[in-house]
Amino acid sequence: MFTCVGYGASAADKPLAPLSLQRRETGAEDVRIEILYCGVCHSDIHCARNEWRSTVYPCVPGHEIVGRVVEVGKAVTRFKIGDHVGVGCMVDSCRQCASCREGLEQYCEQGFVDTYNGQDRHGRGITYGGYSQAIVVDQAFVLDIPKTLDLAATAPLLCAGITTWSPLRRWKVGVGMRVGIVGLGGLGHMGVKLAHALGADVVLLTRSENKLADAKRLGAQEVILSTDAQAMTKEQGRFDFILDTVSAQHDINMYLGLLKRDATLVQVGAPGEPLPVAVFSLILKRRQFAGSLIGGIAETQEMLNFCGEHGITADIEMIRMDEIETAYDRILHSDVKYRFVIDMKTMPSQISAL
Amino acid sequence: MFTCVGYGASAADKPLAPLSLQRRETGAEDVRIEILYCGVCHSDIHCARNEWRSTVYPCVPGHEIVGRVVEVGKAVTRFKIGDHVGVGCMVDSCRQCASCREGLEQYCEQGFVDTYNGQDRHGRGITYGGYSQAIVVDQAFVLDIPKTLDLAATAPLLCAGITTWSPLRRWKVGVGMRVGIVGLGGLGHMGVKLAHALGADVVLLTRSENKLADAKRLGAQEVILSTDAQAMTKEQGRFDFILDTVSAQHDINMYLGLLKRDATLVQVGAPGEPLPVAVFSLILKRRQFAGSLIGGIAETQEMLNFCGEHGITADIEMIRMDEIETAYDRILHSDVKYRFVIDMKTMPSQISAL
Repeated sequence: MFTCVGYGASAADKPLAPLSLQRRETGAEDVRIEILYCGVCHSDIHCARNEWRSTVYPCVPGHEIVGRVVEVGKAVTRFKIGDHVGVGCMVDSCRQCASCREGLEQYCEQGFVDTYNGQDRHGRGITYGGYSQAIVVDQAFVLDIPKTLDLAATAPLLCAGITTWSPLRRWKVGVGMRVGIVGLGGLGHMGVKLAHALGADVVLLTRSENKLADAKRLGAQEVILSTDAQAMTKEQGRFDFILDTVSAQHDINMYLGLLKRDATLVQVGAPGEPLPVAVFSLILKRRQFAGSLIGGIAETQEMLNFCGEHGITADIEMIRMDEIETAYDRILHSDVKYRFVIDMKTMPSQISAL
Repeated sequence: MFTCVGYGASAADKPLAPLSLQRRETGAEDVRIEILYCGVCHSDIHCARNEWRSTVYPCVPGHEIVGRVVEVGKAVTRFKIGDHVGVGCMVDSCRQCASCREGLEQYCEQGFVDTYNGQDRHGRGITYGGYSQAIVVDQAFVLDIPKTLDLAATAPLLCAGITTWSPLRRWKVGVGMRVGIVGLGGLGHMGVKLAHALGADVVLLTRSENKLADAKRLGAQEVILSTDAQAMTKEQGRFDFILDTVSAQHDINMYLGLLKRDATLVQVGAPGEPLPVAVFSLILKRRQFAGSLIGGIAETQEMLNFCGEHGITADIEMIRMDEIETAYDRILHSDVKYRFVIDMKTMPSQISAL
């Protein structure tokens, strides 16, 4: 074991603060990564504050990790010291179930190992995430970062990017398709960029008039205000695919009604309460309402390579580590364009004992 | 125009009674059918009693029609006098939109013409359904009945049969699949028979213990009581496909949880109120919740031919025309095994003037 500095919550009602972490030594299959940047996902807040009632403290969030390889195990073939690499929401899985064998580790039948607050498969305890100087991860769960990409702005691709990429690919979004993206936050802004780069005609569906200019800059051909009943009526049955990134309660039937026959709306934002679905809307056009969870490792690499080829990264606001609580507050007020990324150079050297 | 005897409602609160109908003469593309049997669908009740608030009176229900061709128009090529034929929920559509061209007339972008209470495309007024001595239908919407099938028991295939067949086929139900059918009514009992004949391992999901013997006789390998929380928990993630035929309000999340990753639950029963869907259940296994509406004409013929080859018909209780109100009451109490069929020989000759 070695000690490194992290930043985490010691209880649901305590602000995040510096703390000392024990990480495992680099095993044969492991890559030890010096973390350079870590994106801030809304899930980090849910977990730090125990809003899903499953947090084990201390909790060190962060699953949009970009860093530099500083040590590799003797069986590591895919990475060498100095490589720029990424780690997303998963650091392990059973690797034997049907889902894992298909490269869909996010649906591992035994449950994948979350990058933080997960049950570590390397024995002893709970995983700690990317708000940290370093992390040790099995090479099978480490991603290669294309050399052309800005490292800080790449961090959010590891969660927001893959979460939108995976459904866009699975439902074969591409040229000639009219694709709606609901919501322009961390996920939504990646959805707009990626769907546009895949060749689709992208329409942002939003409640906020002030998102118009940004949406167009990011790649949307049109912006439709979901509060404009007349516009929404006109758009009934006109969409080939909709990606709904809103995690607050909202009227899903309004969006289902926009789908063509046989088209699918995929929910990637996860409202806490059930969404009432008007079944007639599904029946009358054989529509589908589906969900999708992050993406597999191979698919994440595919997404990163695609982003490398197309020069796509997230729009970010860089913060210092000690600004994390302010960042959380701003996220809760949807006041970020469009993802905070922590510059890990700002990790303090003062450490409280665990 | 010619006059024939029908049986219909003159108002939402009036019992059905004999009445005199005007039907069009047989046009070039038309087939005139002497109706022999007509199945009784729950929709008939909704319409007769204006429960969907769109009924035009007088209302003559009936869209599970089997009869004998008694006259054909000069351009009719598919049928000849004496043929046994069927008519289902549709008697026409625009025939030009993408859905019609794909043989999916049920999703006609201009709306298909309902067999009853539909806007007649042959001018003047509203369509009258199968509670009638005769009907005149364009040959494109007339089905051929395989010679091997019992005519009365075939009538329900025209709605209950195709409504379950279409999603079973679209979602490629067959050998090696574990398929759940929710509810054992008119639709559900056809779902069990058809999924079984397609080679699937069929599981009936029901609240009624007394459906067990029937379900097995109809082709189910297993019956799971949805009220048995322990059994339902054990079945989580074990189904390749679920067809939900329940049109009353019910807990859809309980059934969505039974699906494997990437599997689909198709709703064909249509509850009046929205169903609350727990989005996490969709997201965590990339599940899909879909709807499906009857089926196209070509697909209906395919289903009839399949039933002919496999000797499949509905389980029916034959009634006289003047027993229709009693039949409606029994349907509302789920007291029918599993479809009422009217013997049209019992149509009275006494007619009230329209």
